[in-house]
Amino acid sequence: MAVEERRIVVAVDESEESMHALSWFLKNVLSRNSQSTLTILHARRPVAVYPGVDKTSSLFSHDVFSSLERRDTEMATWVLEKATKMCSPYDVKVETRVEEGDPREVICEMVNSLKADLLVMGSRGYGVLARSIMGSVSNHCVQNANCPVLVVKMPKSSPVGSK
Amino acid sequence: MAVEERRIVVAVDESEESMHALSWFLKNVLSRNSQSTLTILHARRPVAVYPGVDKTSSLFSHDVFSSLERRDTEMATWVLEKATKMCSPYDVKVETRVEEGDPREVICEMVNSLKADLLVMGSRGYGVLARSIMGSVSNHCVQNANCPVLVVKMPKSSPVGSK
Repeated sequence: MAVEERRIVVAVDESEESMHALSWFLKNVLSRNSQSTLTILHARRPVAVYPGVDKTSSLFSHDVFSSLERRDTEMATWVLEKATKMCSPYDVKVETRVEEGDPREVICEMVNSLKADLLVMGSRGYGVLARSIMGSVSNHCVQNANCPVLVVKMPKSSPVGSK
Repeated sequence: MAVEERRIVVAVDESEESMHALSWFLKNVLSRNSQSTLTILHARRPVAVYPGVDKTSSLFSHDVFSSLERRDTEMATWVLEKATKMCSPYDVKVETRVEEGDPREVICEMVNSLKADLLVMGSRGYGVLARSIMGSVSNHCVQNANCPVLVVKMPKSSPVGSK
């Protein structure tokens, strides 16, 4: 069967599970499909999702707000560098994207705009706080992303990257 | 990279989406992983999930109950024959299983008992009635099955089996 070009979106955040999802996909699916372009997507939640934190809040100074934004920028850079490095042994084109917003919407919109063939993600991630506010990102994407979705959880008793 | 043996569970029902999920998996993932065993699983809901229907119900005679059971048995046979036929062009071992129960539990238990490497399923299926009673089977499996889950929806504007 001819190998077709594929566009795959991999949603990553700072969680261990998120990186495991990418690792599992690379080892178990991608290696047999080298004509693929991976878009590594980091959906950066707005600082305003922290309770009581927005640019006009009297609870936090401008410095605190800037500090949170800087931390999130550094986190996004770290996440994308780590993910890109994990892809380097594989014969695949890699692009990285950072988009700000509700991860549920950001991920589904990216899948639609790129006409992705597959979305890969962990089942949790995006932080305890974000989950409690926004519900399960993976469940939302499974139901709403306009392409097949591969959800990879952390194995219960084996280290990251195994099988 | 060496091709490893994989155990993949594909959950199927009578829905078009369910067969599309199997088809998409066969075309896009399996073809590069021929050392796989596919377990085609049909989770047959108990007849008792129909409102007011159980073996002791006065609303339905024994004949009606038997008729519903016979219909479900025929449906299971049809679903598994269709799924098996779809696999025949591929170099893969295929097993079929029918298990009765809540599809959410049946599927997760099968994944666990077989120590499956991947679960493949549609995002809906299992009938409007069963969904309304049991919630989303795919969402449950994404969160609870002890392996990665590939959820394949029907494409919005292309026929079954395309892409």
